[in-house]
Amino acid sequence: MFITFTEEKLRTFTFTVFKKMGCSDEHANLATDVLVRSDLRGIDSHGVARLSGYYRLWEKNRINATPNIKIVHETPTTATVDGDAGLGLVVAPFAMKVAIEKAEKYGSGWVSVKNSNHFGIAGYHALMAVEKDMIGISMTNASPLVAPTYANERLLGTNPMCYAFPAGKYPAVVVDMATAAAANGKLEIAQRANADIPDGWVQDKDGHQSINANELKAGGSLLPLGSDKDHGSHKGYGLGATVDILSAVLSGANYGPWVPPFVAFLEPDPNPVGEGIGHFLGAMRVDGFRPAQDFKDHLDNWIKRFKSAKTVDENKKVIIPGEPEYQFENERKITGIPLIDVVVNDLNGLAEKIGVDKL
Amino acid sequence: MFITFTEEKLRTFTFTVFKKMGCSDEHANLATDVLVRSDLRGIDSHGVARLSGYYRLWEKNRINATPNIKIVHETPTTATVDGDAGLGLVVAPFAMKVAIEKAEKYGSGWVSVKNSNHFGIAGYHALMAVEKDMIGISMTNASPLVAPTYANERLLGTNPMCYAFPAGKYPAVVVDMATAAAANGKLEIAQRANADIPDGWVQDKDGHQSINANELKAGGSLLPLGSDKDHGSHKGYGLGATVDILSAVLSGANYGPWVPPFVAFLEPDPNPVGEGIGHFLGAMRVDGFRPAQDFKDHLDNWIKRFKSAKTVDENKKVIIPGEPEYQFENERKITGIPLIDVVVNDLNGLAEKIGVDKL
Repeated sequence: MFITFTEEKLRTFTFTVFKKMGCSDEHANLATDVLVRSDLRGIDSHGVARLSGYYRLWEKNRINATPNIKIVHETPTTATVDGDAGLGLVVAPFAMKVAIEKAEKYGSGWVSVKNSNHFGIAGYHALMAVEKDMIGISMTNASPLVAPTYANERLLGTNPMCYAFPAGKYPAVVVDMATAAAANGKLEIAQRANADIPDGWVQDKDGHQSINANELKAGGSLLPLGSDKDHGSHKGYGLGATVDILSAVLSGANYGPWVPPFVAFLEPDPNPVGEGIGHFLGAMRVDGFRPAQDFKDHLDNWIKRFKSAKTVDENKKVIIPGEPEYQFENERKITGIPLIDVVVNDLNGLAEKIGVDKL
Repeated sequence: MFITFTEEKLRTFTFTVFKKMGCSDEHANLATDVLVRSDLRGIDSHGVARLSGYYRLWEKNRINATPNIKIVHETPTTATVDGDAGLGLVVAPFAMKVAIEKAEKYGSGWVSVKNSNHFGIAGYHALMAVEKDMIGISMTNASPLVAPTYANERLLGTNPMCYAFPAGKYPAVVVDMATAAAANGKLEIAQRANADIPDGWVQDKDGHQSINANELKAGGSLLPLGSDKDHGSHKGYGLGATVDILSAVLSGANYGPWVPPFVAFLEPDPNPVGEGIGHFLGAMRVDGFRPAQDFKDHLDNWIKRFKSAKTVDENKKVIIPGEPEYQFENERKITGIPLIDVVVNDLNGLAEKIGVDKL
């Protein structure tokens, strides 16, 4: 069952919780914006549903509500940022601002981040660059859930990558994707519905593919995009590895199986290879390559051509990456944001515990 | 049947053919190096097997053997290069050199290329950066063969992307992958063997998945990495779109269905939206983020951990991206390069036609 809230209502509630954690007004506002925008864009798994989780990590001192986020190494167009164990929701926008400033001066900017936490949806950060007529790139590593091709171990997170491009009369093209065959959120939906999942999403603890969504919790692993070797799982694994290396080996964060868990009831590895989790953010000025209007006109033409493609089923049109999220955002700004009752109860439980107004 | 040639023999032959086309010594040498290195690395589909194809395109004036390759737009860290219809084998290394020079000065360099042709293996260009302790990125768009999710039209090429990272005592990590479920080369092998292919590689002209490798030539399409919507084909499509936009919409090359065919017997679209095909190349100095030795030590640790992963089948170890190609290269430098007889006959036919020594 779903209950619908206005954007404003969710913002107020979320802001209040972050303030209770001790965040500054600026940080609480920013973290709220990242979470609520995820719900607006229809990516419910990464929105306010995660608020209690952040709070529990803060209670265990694994999130620092008043971080001193700073650049620790740089050149004119590259930098490493130390997130000081802050909310990724705050650290990643800081790092993207650094990338954008460098791009304004030199054409491009690239920032690898260590000592951070879960950063919400990758698209939020990449879209910061799009607003400045830049191409935005954002990636993050994540708690290990994915077994590389042939492995029977969780060595990579769902490690999303996002590329966002400013268009003209159409909305931005936003490719925002986990590098696993299916993200964990889809499994959770199947678990709640007690429904089978397609073959190729998970393998059980013995390494056999399974259509039982509960096998992941029973010691199994998610599979990389491609699902098996014949269908290119080595490519999904390669993309997950790329995200891991750019986000963590480059910055000094934890990588591979050492990435700390996102849930408070699991402890981080006692012998970490780095600090916190890692992100990678980039911005390139479109007019560093050709006049921005030329690029937008041609991207519009690209979009128009793909939208009008001949399709297999006349009821299923080709979707432009980012288009569904854009439509959700326009719609939910007016009609409100539906939250499943489990999430509402969880948030109201949190409110009661910490003494703030319920939703 | 295979016939094995020394690296030197193939180099001499290939150089001679490029010289016959009118290439300068420098360009003929470089183009030869790109092609032969592909054969050395075991990527036979992109090596000297393509030489006749390049020659035929040159005969039809679609490849310019004496191009004036130049930067047409730039900032300190970005540039657009006009390949003047030259061999991609020559244009892409030029562009990667520009990216590396910019990275040496400012930390990173990014070059989008228009008016080019097929550039060989993406890994060659990315590895140019690795030699300088940089992270190398290379991508290219390609003739349309892939149908986006839900489409029944070829709108994207197999659009490969490559990320290469310098390691310490291990060979470089090189993620070099087509964004289709399977590259065309794999289909050609199945066609020759008259063998079935896995479901999820192609759809027939009516948009139904097929295990018949010949359906591609009969008007079907390749499928994006992920194969179908349930298994994430929208992600493979999103990656192919990213490569297309960075390579062509950004540079002014042709994109999507307008990308000119690689084969001389098919004519380019009479109403192009840009010039030639496009590439995208990037280089980032590792020490722009942390001391290079720290990065290499941690990448070595990453590699060691993944190589020693627990596996499903004890005979199949986890493979580090780029490791098989590295092993091929070491081996074939000593034992030579095996070419299938069809390719040898084709090359000797070319030699006869243009009056140079046969293989």
